[in-house]
Amino acid sequence: MTSPPTAAAVIVGNEVLTAKIRDENGPLLVRRLRDRGIPLRWMATVPDEVLAIAHAVRHARAIADVVFTSGGIGPTHDDVTVEGVAVALGVPVVRMPEIEEVLRGHHDGAISNAVLRLANAPRGSTLLEVDGSWFPALANDRTYMLPGVPELFKLQLEAVLKQLPGVPVVLECLYVSLGEPEIAEALDLAAAAFPDVALGSYPHFKRGLDYRVKLTAEHVDGARVRALVEQLERTLPQGCIVRRERG
Amino acid sequence: MTSPPTAAAVIVGNEVLTAKIRDENGPLLVRRLRDRGIPLRWMATVPDEVLAIAHAVRHARAIADVVFTSGGIGPTHDDVTVEGVAVALGVPVVRMPEIEEVLRGHHDGAISNAVLRLANAPRGSTLLEVDGSWFPALANDRTYMLPGVPELFKLQLEAVLKQLPGVPVVLECLYVSLGEPEIAEALDLAAAAFPDVALGSYPHFKRGLDYRVKLTAEHVDGARVRALVEQLERTLPQGCIVRRERG
Repeated sequence: MTSPPTAAAVIVGNEVLTAKIRDENGPLLVRRLRDRGIPLRWMATVPDEVLAIAHAVRHARAIADVVFTSGGIGPTHDDVTVEGVAVALGVPVVRMPEIEEVLRGHHDGAISNAVLRLANAPRGSTLLEVDGSWFPALANDRTYMLPGVPELFKLQLEAVLKQLPGVPVVLECLYVSLGEPEIAEALDLAAAAFPDVALGSYPHFKRGLDYRVKLTAEHVDGARVRALVEQLERTLPQGCIVRRERG
Repeated sequence: MTSPPTAAAVIVGNEVLTAKIRDENGPLLVRRLRDRGIPLRWMATVPDEVLAIAHAVRHARAIADVVFTSGGIGPTHDDVTVEGVAVALGVPVVRMPEIEEVLRGHHDGAISNAVLRLANAPRGSTLLEVDGSWFPALANDRTYMLPGVPELFKLQLEAVLKQLPGVPVVLECLYVSLGEPEIAEALDLAAAAFPDVALGSYPHFKRGLDYRVKLTAEHVDGARVRALVEQLERTLPQGCIVRRERG
């Protein structure tokens, strides 16, 4: 089994730091990395400034195998992520003919200097095809520069994740007939005993189901998941488990 | 006028990085700092590890006047923010008799070693009284160590903000019907002419809205904001402004 890489993320966004926009890309990235069993080690939100981005990307690359940036990719004055990543990598920014070709193709040949900025990339970058989008994702030596617009971020993120050696995560579910307050103590103990296992608790408020809360335990190592679930089976209030399922 | 300090934040939380909990404290901090006109320069989410916390706090202190940490304050083994901040400050962790007294007062004298951990702090720390809470906030040389539980974080944050000089920020928004490529030149000119004003450009890709890009201008000096917006009104392509709003 190839072990999964570790990840770090840099959210580029004055708009996030000034409360104009609530970041959605960080939380999405967190969830999707977890789905793939890729541990996220560090995530920073930085202003749209070349040196702030460069510093964060350099640190991220030092502590993790792959780095995602979100935002600061585009045609306007405040889009400086490409410059920041170039500084972090110690390479110049160059115009990529492959991207220029994509841009001219999409705009029937006539493009402004502003749009042409999208063809700039740190030297040595490569492009990933993105399902559902005409614009490729930009990669450079395990650093992925994704756009800030959530719809585009999401598409490009999936293109990147397809390339990374994920490890299938083992998921087990317990369905219980009591509400969260009655099972909280057992959950707290299990979470403390298995801090590496992702333990989820999902109450529902629908009629006609035979359980009140669905518990999930996830980890790349199935033995850890089983050990946690068995601890829950011993410590949850007697008779509350409706059933146990492999997810 | 005392100019407001700059701020940086360190969110301590494995539970955030593993998608078990979506962080609420970061977004709250962002909003409340903006209300007070205190620029947030940087925000990182790090695991519950002494060295990761120490590294982030040291960087935060280097680039901002005041630093907030969220989480990792508590009685259990994985609460290591106090240790991390102590490493960042280069001081030992000591037991603070003032906190011990508060703890014993609240628990009628009998407290466990686990609870007593709450009396540990980086040497030189001071306490701030918190409205609505018996437990004080912990400060040490412009670094504020706030708990992760959102209700407590919120109370302690307000206690800290009361101490900091703030200035309200003026925000104006322009909604335009053209995409970023078409308005990039006017934006670049405005950004160059008003380098001190925070100018933001936020395209969306949703249906049913009457604009394509939202532009924002922010500064503590309302006259600077108005001057920039008026330059944009003169230089943006004719007829593209849908409306202008005070934010």
